Amino acid sequence: MDQIRAEIVAIGDELLYGHIVDTNSHWISQELSQIGVRVVRRTTIGDNRLDMLTAFKEAEYRADVVLITGGLGPTNDDLTKPLLAEYFNTEIVEFPEAVEAITAFFKSRGREMTTLNTLQGHLPKICRYVPNEVGTAPGMWFERNGTYWMSMPGVPHEMKKLMKDFVMPEIGKVFSLPVIQHRMIKTVGIGESWLSDLIKDWENGLPDHIKLAYLPSLGHVKLRLTAFGQSKEDLSKDIEKEIKKVLPTISKYVYGYDSDTLEIAIGKLLKEQNKRVAVAESCSGGFVAHQITSIPGSSEYFDGGVIPYHNQFKEQVINVSHETLVKHGAVSEETVIEMAQGVKNLFNTDFGLSSSGVAGPGGGSDEKPVGTVWIACATEGLVRTKKLQLTQDRLLNIRLTSVALLNLLRICIHKTSK
Amino acid sequence: MDQIRAEIVAIGDELLYGHIVDTNSHWISQELSQIGVRVVRRTTIGDNRLDMLTAFKEAEYRADVVLITGGLGPTNDDLTKPLLAEYFNTEIVEFPEAVEAITAFFKSRGREMTTLNTLQGHLPKICRYVPNEVGTAPGMWFERNGTYWMSMPGVPHEMKKLMKDFVMPEIGKVFSLPVIQHRMIKTVGIGESWLSDLIKDWENGLPDHIKLAYLPSLGHVKLRLTAFGQSKEDLSKDIEKEIKKVLPTISKYVYGYDSDTLEIAIGKLLKEQNKRVAVAESCSGGFVAHQITSIPGSSEYFDGGVIPYHNQFKEQVINVSHETLVKHGAVSEETVIEMAQGVKNLFNTDFGLSSSGVAGPGGGSDEKPVGTVWIACATEGLVRTKKLQLTQDRLLNIRLTSVALLNLLRICIHKTSK
Repeated sequence: MDQIRAEIVAIGDELLYGHIVDTNSHWISQELSQIGVRVVRRTTIGDNRLDMLTAFKEAEYRADVVLITGGLGPTNDDLTKPLLAEYFNTEIVEFPEAVEAITAFFKSRGREMTTLNTLQGHLPKICRYVPNEVGTAPGMWFERNGTYWMSMPGVPHEMKKLMKDFVMPEIGKVFSLPVIQHRMIKTVGIGESWLSDLIKDWENGLPDHIKLAYLPSLGHVKLRLTAFGQSKEDLSKDIEKEIKKVLPTISKYVYGYDSDTLEIAIGKLLKEQNKRVAVAESCSGGFVAHQITSIPGSSEYFDGGVIPYHNQFKEQVINVSHETLVKHGAVSEETVIEMAQGVKNLFNTDFGLSSSGVAGPGGGSDEKPVGTVWIACATEGLVRTKKLQLTQDRLLNIRLTSVALLNLLRICIHKTSK
Repeated sequence: MDQIRAEIVAIGDELLYGHIVDTNSHWISQELSQIGVRVVRRTTIGDNRLDMLTAFKEAEYRADVVLITGGLGPTNDDLTKPLLAEYFNTEIVEFPEAVEAITAFFKSRGREMTTLNTLQGHLPKICRYVPNEVGTAPGMWFERNGTYWMSMPGVPHEMKKLMKDFVMPEIGKVFSLPVIQHRMIKTVGIGESWLSDLIKDWENGLPDHIKLAYLPSLGHVKLRLTAFGQSKEDLSKDIEKEIKKVLPTISKYVYGYDSDTLEIAIGKLLKEQNKRVAVAESCSGGFVAHQITSIPGSSEYFDGGVIPYHNQFKEQVINVSHETLVKHGAVSEETVIEMAQGVKNLFNTDFGLSSSGVAGPGGGSDEKPVGTVWIACATEGLVRTKKLQLTQDRLLNIRLTSVALLNLLRICIHKTSK
């Protein structure tokens, strides 16, 4: 079966000038990919008649589905609607249903409505009106010679709602889509090439209808399994069977599946075991605490943190000994151990985490160059430490330290739960 | 004078499937816009012969400059180089200089080199070889019928270095670019529509050769002034003259210019006045400390922080009185004042900052719904507080709280420096 081919056309001078990042096209790509529609091209053009008509023509020639975002505002700069009318050789007429919906939208928000807003309810005669419940510019659906078109506002949450409520189901109706199942295995603490080496036999033995993709991101590698076939249930079973095969080899690196993040996975583990954590951050400067507290409900297992940026406060607030700091320095295994134990005691938690390092770009020495970081996790009867040798980039070092420290906590929770 | 027209072609299946966000095209758009080159189209296509050749042909027909990113890896999936050779009707030959540079690159990193890597030094015969000092895939520059082409790797830091070191200067050489000056005024603490209302007379009175753009982002609005003319010096003077006119109206919101961020601006202010700060974060959970410590050299004015996530530690670690917590609750003006003073005392700094609120999505009440946040800044002889009524979104609330708290610090520094 041939895959359905889609093109995305994003319209707006502000995109081409780099004033606004086009997050829409990326999001649409992901969504379509999930239902087995193949995006073959994304085009970004300005609010310009000739560029827009050319893009429409090129897209129609190549694609089964054309998704257009932007250019639907109420002012004269916004050309998408009149040019679609021109392209489809039709006129713009009042859609009473659309005018009514826009009027209701303004009324519900207690806002004044202008003539320009009323005109947003006038649409190309041959289009199918698609209500936009969270904004004023309606969606418009067209069909010609087997190609389907949808025009949507560029505002991300309006576009997303129209995609989910209308476009995705509609594509499923007008085309016979392949049956696809996805499953994502989330790993941390191992690089892409090492992981690939570890699982190459399993990878080579995957059945033809299951594809594997490596998706690396900061300190993480996601393994995406995609199965193609006839029934979702069968595909799910096939995928689970393969996961069972590979898990013994990689289980120590796997923290979760699909939408899990490392912070979410750690939260689950701590809640399950009724344990609590506190953090003492020097070089990571609050970022680990931020990662943990970005998860709703984190107050159930996070008691607090200290950022003792100077040695004096490492001693004063979390009780690192003066001798240790003088003898080994702030960036040392000895110091991070005392920091982790100190913050665990201060907040009376089960686990204490700590970081100390040279985040850069300044502050490095021959012995401890920029990127040298020590981390520790302390709990009753167990202390684990790790030395990291990171990059020259301060922000990257902070983020990588955070991933490594959360992973160290994950390992310690597993060690102590046995 | 006609503007130089550029097109950006980003190549890679991983972009179309939504596995990777294409940040390159956005960055290139911004850079070109700064030197007066107009990006007329951005196209993203997969690693597919026909799609690539079509994109090349369409781009050549329309643009003066074509910038291609991606598809330059050493493996067979990477088609950009052979297809450029095909498109320009030339053969791929060894460029000894390029092979030498790649060999040196591997040697300097102590890594093994494969035959595939050597072949990265073989390039289309008619191209100009552009050394890539931070990676293995060389840049390639082509010219045909007045259109200039550059092919670059998709790895962002490699592409950026090639753009800055070679492409931007080269475009300046082969075209006569318009003379343009930009200046960005950075504001915080006022919404776009309020700001626009405040400065509308000034805006309407701007000379024809100076354009104004509003660029809003989380809690901030940037005002971008762009001047077109004959001499950079004259344009700079013209812009400064306009800034001087508008500044009295908006000075309380202006924290900096151009590449300044709020964190950088605060760092400068504190260093100038030889003052130091500490933070006590409840609802912002470490994010304010992270923002401050993300700036190199922040240890010169940041002493540390405490994240007393539970009331017990607000009392125990930073000395908030039990009575205040019981009487007014953790999310109250009284509590954040004591938190700010407490953390200032603990770290013995000039300024103490604090936050306490309902970040959500749970934890709201009728009296204190989700999004209710109190912040405070305390210093000798001055305490400033602010109540924020934010959104339903936890992460957004954390970020908005951080912007508001840093802005409160900025205001307090100004108040106390007089």
